[in-house]
Amino acid sequence: MLPVSKIKFVKSLQTEKFRKLHGLFTVEGPTMVGELLKSDFAVDEIFAVRSWVEENKNLSGRSDVKIYDVTDKELNRLSGLKTPNKVIATANIPTNEISGKIFNNLLIALDGIADPGNLGTIIRIADWFGIENIICSPQTVELFNPKVVRATMGSLFRVRLFHVDLPGVFTKFGKNIPILGATLSGKDIYKAELPEKAIVVIGNEAHGIGSQVKSFLTDEISIPLFGRATESLNAAVATGIICSEFLRRRK
Amino acid sequence: MLPVSKIKFVKSLQTEKFRKLHGLFTVEGPTMVGELLKSDFAVDEIFAVRSWVEENKNLSGRSDVKIYDVTDKELNRLSGLKTPNKVIATANIPTNEISGKIFNNLLIALDGIADPGNLGTIIRIADWFGIENIICSPQTVELFNPKVVRATMGSLFRVRLFHVDLPGVFTKFGKNIPILGATLSGKDIYKAELPEKAIVVIGNEAHGIGSQVKSFLTDEISIPLFGRATESLNAAVATGIICSEFLRRRK
Repeated sequence: MLPVSKIKFVKSLQTEKFRKLHGLFTVEGPTMVGELLKSDFAVDEIFAVRSWVEENKNLSGRSDVKIYDVTDKELNRLSGLKTPNKVIATANIPTNEISGKIFNNLLIALDGIADPGNLGTIIRIADWFGIENIICSPQTVELFNPKVVRATMGSLFRVRLFHVDLPGVFTKFGKNIPILGATLSGKDIYKAELPEKAIVVIGNEAHGIGSQVKSFLTDEISIPLFGRATESLNAAVATGIICSEFLRRRK
Repeated sequence: MLPVSKIKFVKSLQTEKFRKLHGLFTVEGPTMVGELLKSDFAVDEIFAVRSWVEENKNLSGRSDVKIYDVTDKELNRLSGLKTPNKVIATANIPTNEISGKIFNNLLIALDGIADPGNLGTIIRIADWFGIENIICSPQTVELFNPKVVRATMGSLFRVRLFHVDLPGVFTKFGKNIPILGATLSGKDIYKAELPEKAIVVIGNEAHGIGSQVKSFLTDEISIPLFGRATESLNAAVATGIICSEFLRRRK
């Protein structure tokens, strides 16, 4: 039987405060935990029902991970989901050090994305289009929030995320790189020149790009409106269309 | 003071059963209700706090709408939201009759989109790209679910939705129209021919397009994978990219 203290500990990782304190986050369900185990993330502990443990006896190269065989009832108490799915893992929050290298390709910068589902979906988009790095302002929703983790569908383990001060990074590394802001009044993205090496800045869902970050933009790009919409496109959808337009031209 | 029976009635519209029974759905918040009032939707009743009522004294051409002045407490009891925002309206669920005309342009067909947020976002995408009609299979999430309504950001009032049997519609109207399924193994969308007049079929988030609908496809299109992702793109993001690619070429 799992000690109550252990249950409390894992459950506490549902809140940002304890994730930061312990440097750990949770991953739920066989698909996501499978992706985690294939990644280079440091896994701490795994809590799984018997059927998962039986199916995953040979975790190649992962012999260091402590696995707890738990009951359905215990899994329910550990989980942040209404209907937990067989397995919960705790993993180390990676601390990625920023370097000039990540600016040698297309890079996404998020200035205050607030919705965890949008952030997760954007990470998934980056993974699809081979964009390996995303830099996020401190105003962006916490990167290892369980809703973000879930929405990435495993992409979280392949795309590197950096929580940074965007103006500081732009000052230090962005000198010779186009910094293109996605706005509602920029150049038509279908006609604009889209360089191979660029930083694309996506702003907050309601307020767009902040004024401080805006002052660093070398240009603005927009997806033209064809219909009668009065609101902008969803931030994740806009990011998907912009990435598609960049990558399409390299084919 | 609002009678309890009225509160119960409006609150009951949070469930699909009562929306279907009464043919009504709810719209919340000043922005969305503003869009509703500008639309040709039949509005039934409006429940609003004093400040909203004051600001909207002249509802031009909407003198038929009954407006109730409610307290914050009453608004809380009427609303499906944790933090209601000034106003709730009830409106008639439109019954759109399908006709051949809607096939004279790009049309989206949804075969079993299950997530209300995805459906709402797809409606918003259609509105952005000037796609006026979306046909939805019976397996698609209910169109006037409050989560769908909210995610559309008002686009719901400009895009016509049809709940239909897709094979029946394809048989009756789809004879000379390309029916293109978005799949993982179709033609590269960046290279494929994309006709002006076409039906684009988007499948369920987990299972894709059903086998019955698949038999009607004249071709399949795909967004090529550039990275290492193991899951497909989010259904709404994929729809956005596909619409972008269709419309871009018309410019």
